[in-house]
Amino acid sequence: MNTPWTDRRILDLLGIAQPILQAPMAGASTPAMAVGVAKAGGLGALPSAQYTVDQARAAVGEFRAAVDAPINLNFFSHVTPAPDPVRMMRWRARLAGYYVEAGLDPAEAPPTGGRAPFDEAFCSLVEELRPEVVSFHFGLPDPKLVARVKAAGSKILSSATTVAEARWLEARGVDAIIAMGAEAGGHRASFLGGFGDGELSHTLDMAVQPGLFALVPQIVDAVSAPVIAAGAIADGRGLAAALTLGASAVQVGTAFLFTNEAQIPTAHRAALEKARDDNTMITDVFTGRPARGVVNRLMLDQGPFAPEAPPFPTAGGPLIPLRRGGESGDFTNAWAGQAAHLAPRGLSAQALTETLAQDGLARLRGG
Amino acid sequence: MNTPWTDRRILDLLGIAQPILQAPMAGASTPAMAVGVAKAGGLGALPSAQYTVDQARAAVGEFRAAVDAPINLNFFSHVTPAPDPVRMMRWRARLAGYYVEAGLDPAEAPPTGGRAPFDEAFCSLVEELRPEVVSFHFGLPDPKLVARVKAAGSKILSSATTVAEARWLEARGVDAIIAMGAEAGGHRASFLGGFGDGELSHTLDMAVQPGLFALVPQIVDAVSAPVIAAGAIADGRGLAAALTLGASAVQVGTAFLFTNEAQIPTAHRAALEKARDDNTMITDVFTGRPARGVVNRLMLDQGPFAPEAPPFPTAGGPLIPLRRGGESGDFTNAWAGQAAHLAPRGLSAQALTETLAQDGLARLRGG
Repeated sequence: MNTPWTDRRILDLLGIAQPILQAPMAGASTPAMAVGVAKAGGLGALPSAQYTVDQARAAVGEFRAAVDAPINLNFFSHVTPAPDPVRMMRWRARLAGYYVEAGLDPAEAPPTGGRAPFDEAFCSLVEELRPEVVSFHFGLPDPKLVARVKAAGSKILSSATTVAEARWLEARGVDAIIAMGAEAGGHRASFLGGFGDGELSHTLDMAVQPGLFALVPQIVDAVSAPVIAAGAIADGRGLAAALTLGASAVQVGTAFLFTNEAQIPTAHRAALEKARDDNTMITDVFTGRPARGVVNRLMLDQGPFAPEAPPFPTAGGPLIPLRRGGESGDFTNAWAGQAAHLAPRGLSAQALTETLAQDGLARLRGG
Repeated sequence: MNTPWTDRRILDLLGIAQPILQAPMAGASTPAMAVGVAKAGGLGALPSAQYTVDQARAAVGEFRAAVDAPINLNFFSHVTPAPDPVRMMRWRARLAGYYVEAGLDPAEAPPTGGRAPFDEAFCSLVEELRPEVVSFHFGLPDPKLVARVKAAGSKILSSATTVAEARWLEARGVDAIIAMGAEAGGHRASFLGGFGDGELSHTLDMAVQPGLFALVPQIVDAVSAPVIAAGAIADGRGLAAALTLGASAVQVGTAFLFTNEAQIPTAHRAALEKARDDNTMITDVFTGRPARGVVNRLMLDQGPFAPEAPPFPTAGGPLIPLRRGGESGDFTNAWAGQAAHLAPRGLSAQALTETLAQDGLARLRGG
């Protein structure tokens, strides 16, 4: 494939024409979004954490029927926590006042909040569907499962929020590393918490998270795998700057939330419209795991980090009733990165990908 | 002046050849450092917060005698807080255990920690010395003083950590805006705290601080003044990437701490040697105002943010005895940005400035 990009490492590895990966965003991405990105020459992604095995198979089928291009099937690789009924009751007690305010009975058993991790069933699906790319969030699953994904022919990506995490991933055989700056929206990929499991560990682990400007060159220097920059990249300037820092490609998330193909709740859309450089925060109150979103009432009342929040993903369950029928956004996780305001509006996923590539290239050529 | 840089806005405004400003670092910068930067075509800086009026006059004299180039005289523009003896006693009580551990008497009156703000006397000095550039940290001083600095012919710079601060500064007539990313070492320039003065305000104000990747293009879009990028820029990649994002120049701090001209305590030097991407934190325990430094015992024990710490700069006083004779670094503010590890070692300030300019230019030309 003949493209004008100087660094072809990611392009050749993943079989794409433009160095742009659509971030897999559970609860927002759609097969149509991935198709649009692929048609523009980027890498579309399907976030399996929002799917059952059958739904994931159907989503890949929808993509395959629409376009002949590689696809990134993404999985969370956390370990489902053992139930902790004491902590869950403490968390429900913290939230009980909101239930009463909403006319709900806090004593009623709440639904279970869930994100399915990569497991035997998903691994069999990968072997069946053979996606060109499989990406993991929160480190990597069991080495035996990783080996099976490799044997199925999929290239493996995972995200690092520090140099230490990048080295850890490279030692375990990933084909490329996503350098996720502190600016990025959604769940931090962090999996090597340097400050342990204490009550303050989330606060301290997040306090040391490097911004993309610091992270990309230090990861590039530390590993030999190609690096994909993620976080606050929403226009051609960001793409060009990331490649200038040494990245071989970029992963873009928040900007795709503004495309026509994004499927997000009304409260999330409203929050994105008012997102600025300085009104997002990393918090663990929505799921039990640190993630960046637009500041709202729950984050300020209970966070940014809540000692009572039970481990990921169980903290999310008791919030579900509070979101029903409410457009206030007080309890909605409105994931967004720090550059949401830069994102073009009203484009299709294909047009956004094309615009990013064109503007980025022009900027690299001294535009 | 004929230089190869495409964007000449800052070069022409400040009368320099290379788009590199040395960050004024109180307690580390020296006139020799500023001279070296100036000889390489960058803008040297003298941090007046570490000087009396007479010392500042002598430092400028030393610079003027060595090189014919513009100089940036930098001032803190905080308001000296009214004494708060109750909070000071609470802070001393928090630190009393360390005094006992060090064989000191916690009941003995500690020295006063101080950083002098810009005032009538410093303003008269500016009128006398007419530095080509005057920069402020923590916003701007009284408008009457700003007007006198302008009338003296000095170009005025100040730092913004958010778009809102950049707009505030532009409305008050600064000639250029330093966009200070969350990655930067030393005191955050923040002066418009969105979360008020409550106990949690520092935590929340810092939790929303944008990284440089998000900050530079959003400030560039919001103001018409030229923008200088600061934070995590320690090599040619960072310089080139910052200009690619839309900045007209960069300000470099931490990398100059590794030059031969830097004057820092042994404990600070030791901390810098082990500085990595993920072991610095923003804290207010050293001075009462948020600043980024290498993680140490005091930050982890009492911070990152301490409700008892009295306002800037008074919190620093009771720490002075704890640092005496100790090489442990447990109580030393080892300011550093998140890219300290990238900084070249063993160079003179002149050689560092030249290297940054050459490497940055090569990278911009597709190197």
